[in-house]
Amino acid sequence: MRPDEVKLLLSGVESGVTTVDEALSALSALPVEDIDVARLDTHRELRQGMPEAIYAEGKTTEDVAKIARVLLAKSSGPVIATRVPAAMAAQLRTDIPTCVHHEEARLIVFRREQRRDLGRVAVVSAGTSDRAVAQEAAVVAEVAGAEVARINDVGVAGLHRLLAAQEEMHRADVVIVVAGMEGALASLVGGITAAPVVAVPTSVGYGASFDGLAALLAMLNSCAAGVAVMNIDNGFGAAMFALRLLRKLKP
Amino acid sequence: MRPDEVKLLLSGVESGVTTVDEALSALSALPVEDIDVARLDTHRELRQGMPEAIYAEGKTTEDVAKIARVLLAKSSGPVIATRVPAAMAAQLRTDIPTCVHHEEARLIVFRREQRRDLGRVAVVSAGTSDRAVAQEAAVVAEVAGAEVARINDVGVAGLHRLLAAQEEMHRADVVIVVAGMEGALASLVGGITAAPVVAVPTSVGYGASFDGLAALLAMLNSCAAGVAVMNIDNGFGAAMFALRLLRKLKP
Amino acid sequence: MRPDEVKLLLSGVESGVTTVDEALSALSALPVEDIDVARLDTHRELRQGMPEAIYAEGKTTEDVAKIARVLLAKSSGPVIATRVPAAMAAQLRTDIPTCVHHEEARLIVFRREQRRDLGRVAVVSAGTSDRAVAQEAAVVAEVAGAEVARINDVGVAGLHRLLAAQEEMHRADVVIVVAGMEGALASLVGGITAAPVVAVPTSVGYGASFDGLAALLAMLNSCAAGVAVMNIDNGFGAAMFALRLLRKLKP
Amino acid sequence: MRPDEVKLLLSGVESGVTTVDEALSALSALPVEDIDVARLDTHRELRQGMPEAIYAEGKTTEDVAKIARVLLAKSSGPVIATRVPAAMAAQLRTDIPTCVHHEEARLIVFRREQRRDLGRVAVVSAGTSDRAVAQEAAVVAEVAGAEVARINDVGVAGLHRLLAAQEEMHRADVVIVVAGMEGALASLVGGITAAPVVAVPTSVGYGASFDGLAALLAMLNSCAAGVAVMNIDNGFGAAMFALRLLRKLKP
Amino acid sequence: MRPDEVKLLLSGVESGVTTVDEALSALSALPVEDIDVARLDTHRELRQGMPEAIYAEGKTTEDVAKIARVLLAKSSGPVIATRVPAAMAAQLRTDIPTCVHHEEARLIVFRREQRRDLGRVAVVSAGTSDRAVAQEAAVVAEVAGAEVARINDVGVAGLHRLLAAQEEMHRADVVIVVAGMEGALASLVGGITAAPVVAVPTSVGYGASFDGLAALLAMLNSCAAGVAVMNIDNGFGAAMFALRLLRKLKP
Amino acid sequence: MRPDEVKLLLSGVESGVTTVDEALSALSALPVEDIDVARLDTHRELRQGMPEAIYAEGKTTEDVAKIARVLLAKSSGPVIATRVPAAMAAQLRTDIPTCVHHEEARLIVFRREQRRDLGRVAVVSAGTSDRAVAQEAAVVAEVAGAEVARINDVGVAGLHRLLAAQEEMHRADVVIVVAGMEGALASLVGGITAAPVVAVPTSVGYGASFDGLAALLAMLNSCAAGVAVMNIDNGFGAAMFALRLLRKLKP
Amino acid sequence: MRPDEVKLLLSGVESGVTTVDEALSALSALPVEDIDVARLDTHRELRQGMPEAIYAEGKTTEDVAKIARVLLAKSSGPVIATRVPAAMAAQLRTDIPTCVHHEEARLIVFRREQRRDLGRVAVVSAGTSDRAVAQEAAVVAEVAGAEVARINDVGVAGLHRLLAAQEEMHRADVVIVVAGMEGALASLVGGITAAPVVAVPTSVGYGASFDGLAALLAMLNSCAAGVAVMNIDNGFGAAMFALRLLRKLKP
Amino acid sequence: MRPDEVKLLLSGVESGVTTVDEALSALSALPVEDIDVARLDTHRELRQGMPEAIYAEGKTTEDVAKIARVLLAKSSGPVIATRVPAAMAAQLRTDIPTCVHHEEARLIVFRREQRRDLGRVAVVSAGTSDRAVAQEAAVVAEVAGAEVARINDVGVAGLHRLLAAQEEMHRADVVIVVAGMEGALASLVGGITAAPVVAVPTSVGYGASFDGLAALLAMLNSCAAGVAVMNIDNGFGAAMFALRLLRKLKP
Repeated sequence: MRPDEVKLLLSGVESGVTTVDEALSALSALPVEDIDVARLDTHRELRQGMPEAIYAEGKTTEDVAKIARVLLAKSSGPVIATRVPAAMAAQLRTDIPTCVHHEEARLIVFRREQRRDLGRVAVVSAGTSDRAVAQEAAVVAEVAGAEVARINDVGVAGLHRLLAAQEEMHRADVVIVVAGMEGALASLVGGITAAPVVAVPTSVGYGASFDGLAALLAMLNSCAAGVAVMNIDNGFGAAMFALRLLRKLKP
Repeated sequence: MRPDEVKLLLSGVESGVTTVDEALSALSALPVEDIDVARLDTHRELRQGMPEAIYAEGKTTEDVAKIARVLLAKSSGPVIATRVPAAMAAQLRTDIPTCVHHEEARLIVFRREQRRDLGRVAVVSAGTSDRAVAQEAAVVAEVAGAEVARINDVGVAGLHRLLAAQEEMHRADVVIVVAGMEGALASLVGGITAAPVVAVPTSVGYGASFDGLAALLAMLNSCAAGVAVMNIDNGFGAAMFALRLLRKLKP
Repeated sequence: MRPDEVKLLLSGVESGVTTVDEALSALSALPVEDIDVARLDTHRELRQGMPEAIYAEGKTTEDVAKIARVLLAKSSGPVIATRVPAAMAAQLRTDIPTCVHHEEARLIVFRREQRRDLGRVAVVSAGTSDRAVAQEAAVVAEVAGAEVARINDVGVAGLHRLLAAQEEMHRADVVIVVAGMEGALASLVGGITAAPVVAVPTSVGYGASFDGLAALLAMLNSCAAGVAVMNIDNGFGAAMFALRLLRKLKP
Repeated sequence: MRPDEVKLLLSGVESGVTTVDEALSALSALPVEDIDVARLDTHRELRQGMPEAIYAEGKTTEDVAKIARVLLAKSSGPVIATRVPAAMAAQLRTDIPTCVHHEEARLIVFRREQRRDLGRVAVVSAGTSDRAVAQEAAVVAEVAGAEVARINDVGVAGLHRLLAAQEEMHRADVVIVVAGMEGALASLVGGITAAPVVAVPTSVGYGASFDGLAALLAMLNSCAAGVAVMNIDNGFGAAMFALRLLRKLKP
Repeated sequence: MRPDEVKLLLSGVESGVTTVDEALSALSALPVEDIDVARLDTHRELRQGMPEAIYAEGKTTEDVAKIARVLLAKSSGPVIATRVPAAMAAQLRTDIPTCVHHEEARLIVFRREQRRDLGRVAVVSAGTSDRAVAQEAAVVAEVAGAEVARINDVGVAGLHRLLAAQEEMHRADVVIVVAGMEGALASLVGGITAAPVVAVPTSVGYGASFDGLAALLAMLNSCAAGVAVMNIDNGFGAAMFALRLLRKLKP
Repeated sequence: MRPDEVKLLLSGVESGVTTVDEALSALSALPVEDIDVARLDTHRELRQGMPEAIYAEGKTTEDVAKIARVLLAKSSGPVIATRVPAAMAAQLRTDIPTCVHHEEARLIVFRREQRRDLGRVAVVSAGTSDRAVAQEAAVVAEVAGAEVARINDVGVAGLHRLLAAQEEMHRADVVIVVAGMEGALASLVGGITAAPVVAVPTSVGYGASFDGLAALLAMLNSCAAGVAVMNIDNGFGAAMFALRLLRKLKP
Repeated sequence: MRPDEVKLLLSGVESGVTTVDEALSALSALPVEDIDVARLDTHRELRQGMPEAIYAEGKTTEDVAKIARVLLAKSSGPVIATRVPAAMAAQLRTDIPTCVHHEEARLIVFRREQRRDLGRVAVVSAGTSDRAVAQEAAVVAEVAGAEVARINDVGVAGLHRLLAAQEEMHRADVVIVVAGMEGALASLVGGITAAPVVAVPTSVGYGASFDGLAALLAMLNSCAAGVAVMNIDNGFGAAMFALRLLRKLKP
Repeated sequence: MRPDEVKLLLSGVESGVTTVDEALSALSALPVEDIDVARLDTHRELRQGMPEAIYAEGKTTEDVAKIARVLLAKSSGPVIATRVPAAMAAQLRTDIPTCVHHEEARLIVFRREQRRDLGRVAVVSAGTSDRAVAQEAAVVAEVAGAEVARINDVGVAGLHRLLAAQEEMHRADVVIVVAGMEGALASLVGGITAAPVVAVPTSVGYGASFDGLAALLAMLNSCAAGVAVMNIDNGFGAAMFALRLLRKLKP
């Protein structure tokens, strides 16, 4: 029931066409959907600029293309697909030529945010094998308008590289740390920067890393107070969390 | 090697008392500690206002009191003790009469930040048994100068209470969600607010909750993009993370 | 905004006291709470007869008594407290003399449903140590008006007792199976009855039972199609699930 | 020993052909199998209408076809195969042309129940990737004569869709909730409907979802009293459980 | 229906008092219980000499004494109570003066088997802390008539003691190996004896022994083909398994 | 140092060719290997008739063939290869034409024991998918001279089939139970037979069966005293354990 | 059979008192024990200086005292008791006045090695709560003659303290790192020193530290190549491992 | 700031070209990177001879070749690639003809240390399937200049082979034990040698070995004091740890 419908109803009461009881009955049947539509609008407005994302893994290329077209049509903000297999990416670039493929990040960007001043994110990663996840986080943040500093290969066993990047981290509004194996990088970064640190464990490692469990537990137990943790390999989620922060900083 | 010592050395070179090679040798032996003192200062300045915290569990009352006195003396910011057993709290209030005991939060506040305008934190908790952890988060945030809105008993099985609190969450700069059992509250809050959501699983529950593991895993797998997770029962850590955010918003 | 308030508003429009726009504005401000009150009412009506339950563990006796009094006042259906420690039970019986203590089930019943014809539940338990959980399920179901058949000590190692009870199970509308150790009883009961089977693993056992995990996993993997599982030791939940079924059968 | 054989024996006693002791001896040797045949009959009668199911995964197409033919011959109720790989499905449709393939549900229906009034099941699923499991539950229930309402893509992060479907759930005799990731949907549905809720965790998710473990634990710990849980991805089992309920409602 | 009742019925047919159809009807109603009584008898006969055991943990002293008295009365074989706390043991010895308390094994023996020639069991244990479990196994086996050789403190780190006991093991009909920590003893014993080896992991150890899980997994993965495993700390079960073997050897 | 060498040495002493000290020195250098050869001999004698087994998985066909030839040459007892992939089996049958391939059991038998009177093993399996493991156990036992009764498809959900096979189990010297899913079959068999029961969990199942963990834990926690457990899918190990028993019965 | 006994035997052969066959027979019966006595001697010599340790937890004070006296008598090296409860320590100091109690390390030293030049161990610990384990390692190493450098409170969140201690670590022959929570310290130390690093996870932490599991997994996955790990809280084991190294360096 | 730059600065002070304050300011701005370069140098010197290793799994052949060339150019010590797939190895041998492929160890050696006197490592492995990991450890140690004794197929079920190799182990400076399944070999070796024992669990096994978890836990719980553990399958890490030891022995 749209506002104009309610108005029509009230006019009916006013003019005597509708009795009070009829109107009461109509209003009490006020469908939940309509309230929700309103809520949805508010909601959409609040999320303005947050990427609409399609999780491509397990979907057909046709489905991804179709959803992408709907999202492009129904919204004006950034639209991306995540975890896109190589073959699907090739096909999507043929189907929707305006899209951009980020190979390492396994992302397709259908439309990015025009604005580029949303704030500054530092994405710190430990080893070369963590880079896919780090790139996912970095590209998603960029697509939504953030400025991103990538700090790669900053392993805890080679402390000097981390210390050298300290300045870069201090300038960031939020630091995303991506690390597999023992995940110790999160604690270190937490100790040398005052920025909020979002840690992403990766499934990199073998043996008793148990597909990222070791890094996940380590990050949850970080002795550096103020480190929050995302799911294993969830670079996309880390970026989305960072974007929530940035939109508070620069609404 | 303090700055004045370096100056003395350089003066020696200038006056010819010390040769270039002697000075080079002395400087190359430049002890790491002194660099660290400098780094420590910078660091302390950056963390200005963050509570200095003593983890009381497993320490003697004497130790806690002693550390508290040192922290009060060496710093000017807030000083607290966390996880304080009831008996220790009673004794500490006798020993250091100016301290304040937050019973439910198991916290002792030795000194709080004067400033109260650091920003707004909403602490949402699911059940009555999650309240100790929620209070820990809330009091730590307040002690550091944040304004805190407490939203308690907002279980997912009674959706209406959560929806009623929606407005309150929208006004917050960061939302901390504290929940045990199935931990679903984090996803719901993530879905109805655009603020960054920090989820704290609690060890509340029985049977297959496995002391908070169920809630922890649920929160890590939240379908609401942009929810970050803390260790089980770590209300203190959630507050510290929130404070890092707030200090970026209002430096 | 209660229905009578809306009616008043509409009457105002009808009588010309209120303009259409004023009414529209008032209705659009329709607070969520009021919708929720309505929803709550509907909901309460639907749940009529379901026990209002207080989880006593970790609460003070005062809190339990207080909540019980509120629930007795605000509702007309059954009111119980679960997981009541012995000492608390003694105190509650002094404070609220009308309540009944079920020692083995660790339950206090403050008020039970008058109706006793809600349907028939069979509660089957494996060993003597599973009986506390079985009793919790049985008493909760009885309190809400169900007829309960208790079938105890029906271990899988002594098959004849189980077969002897077959008839009893066939007459039940729903069968609750309570078993620790290897939890095999659920599969057996599932195989010999056509009724819906709700399995409750218990934490009974030692060594590699891992506090009920062995029984939980066994029940989830039951080869008898149509066995659903509750949390470890959750006799209360099993009864609540059974009551949902019974109320569908005899609304 | 069939009833007619026993009758023959008794006639022998009556006519004096057989002595009492001979008959006693013959009866005491009464083979268990014969009792079982009887029991099987009773049993089969009770299960009348429940689908006879072939778990196809790991079997050869020949085996599945052969078992299907036997089941079609020996019984008169519905016959299905579950977890049928695409290639096997194609072959089966050639071999047994009357069968119907439900691709998404990975089911082959060889014969369905004629009756369609067994009651009403709502199958609620969270994301598009949960749909295979939801379809398995839905088709199995339909095949046995239930009316099924499918409510898809009702994620907890978009609450409005769930609320919109509330009415649909209220009309159902039993609600099956299918969800992966954090599995929170079960608690929500449990909170807004009074119907029995059967939760099916799915292996959808990545990282710390641990192939459905996160959703499984969350559902077992649901704060909505009266939610029962099936094995991970076990849509078939959820339907079978629901059918047990429905057959109690409409015998 | 006892044999004499069946005989009575058949006599009725023979004499014409009962018709064939009446007898058929009576026989078809043949209650399951009666079959079970027969089965129970057979069963009891087969188990003759196996200890009837009461698991004392979690029971009251009164219950244990009562059950013991019933078992002493209804059977003629050995009767024991396992996991008996010290205080309960003292009380039981006062109540039933003929019983014998095995302190280390936490067992009370109410009656033992007269026969002592059931065969030979070697109980090998690794460390002093494994001895309670080893004693439980040893005493249970002895109580049922087996000859038991105790071989204690045979750690894998001191191989010579194990080799010295090789002869003793060769003479045994079955070897029970009790070990905590890394549980390697089972593999070693399996390698040096041709007897069947029953391994009992114990919860002895700390840290990553996870209450016996490490030893349990090690024993299940033994590289010595032909090692079977019992539950953690289940010395009683190991003895019962050994007794099943011995009764096959010397029926 | 072979016995004949020692004899030679002693003869040298006797004849005066060797001094006492020289002989003492030679004997004190008595290499461990030689003792081991002796021990090996004793050992081999004890194991006479136990199959020498080659674990084929992960080996090349050449390696398996080579080892088989050596084992055939150096011993006179049965020789088998386990876990043989289909392609390797085909090749081996070409290379060593006398070998026999047991397809379902994934075994190649190079030589079997002539004797067939070693005793009687019953191999009971729950579902069709457990049959590979059951066959592995059955064939290995047969190859070593045991008589094997196969009892297949005896699921706990269809109790009558199990009861029908009761007699068969009573006649066995040892019963091997093979079951996946909830593994309840072991407890049932343990309850209805007095023979020693060796339980083999299988990795059959899905979801929360966790590749056999559910069945493994269930079997370890069996309420039927006297059930011992093998590693998941370890049919070979169960047979080897059974053979150890049988050789004690019929040395 | 002692060497002199063999000599006697050989002399008998030489003198003709014993035939070659008699001697051969006696030698072939060469009991394993005697070989073992020899082996034991060699072994003891090799371990000279390694502490003989009594694990006190779970033993009575009498037992510990008795074992200590035997060890003091039978050996000449260091003798200690580990995990000694406070009350037991007090009693032992009364019973054996020459012993020394290390309270924090929960150790009693009955006799220490005179030598103090065995080499240099650095024991690095992360937090104050890790100190008990660190002290256990340090005292055990000292008792055996090593020089120990204690480096406490070197958390990864405060990097400067660690860097300051770099020199100390470089001088050590082996570095023991003791850390709970996320256990990151091991990787850091591994990265800044070339010495062998032995990591000891501690059970310090809460929530998802799972009693040291998080630190254990982190240390096993250390990205610094060349870090070896001990069991949780096993400071004693770390010292024993270090002593094995030192004895290779300075035999 | 390189040493020569500092020297230049000091010369400026000496000559009066630079004032003391200017020099002080320049030195206080001493960038962290430069300190790190120095530290790196020291570090590199310390690690002289330790292999520079490329983890090949997941990298392209091009990347591995490129990194290898850089490492060959920038250092003078050994350079290797680990976990090299067969196809990549073939290609690398074409691209860099001087490299050597160790197939079983899955290693490519680009340059090895000239020195071969670094000390002696014994690599003991349990079964043929553990050999790949054992070879990885052995080749890495050899490449860096150690002498390696390989002791293969020393299973705990055949004790004599282990005892035969005892002498070999005594001669080693460090013993690496590689074992899957129940991992008991580490405890045995720890008991018979005084050398430091580094245990490497392997993922060899099936069922409840859980990809090496069983062996890992067993090794961590070794009853032989002084056994340290590496990650599952981490032969490379074990060698690197051994090399740290050897370089302390023979700097």
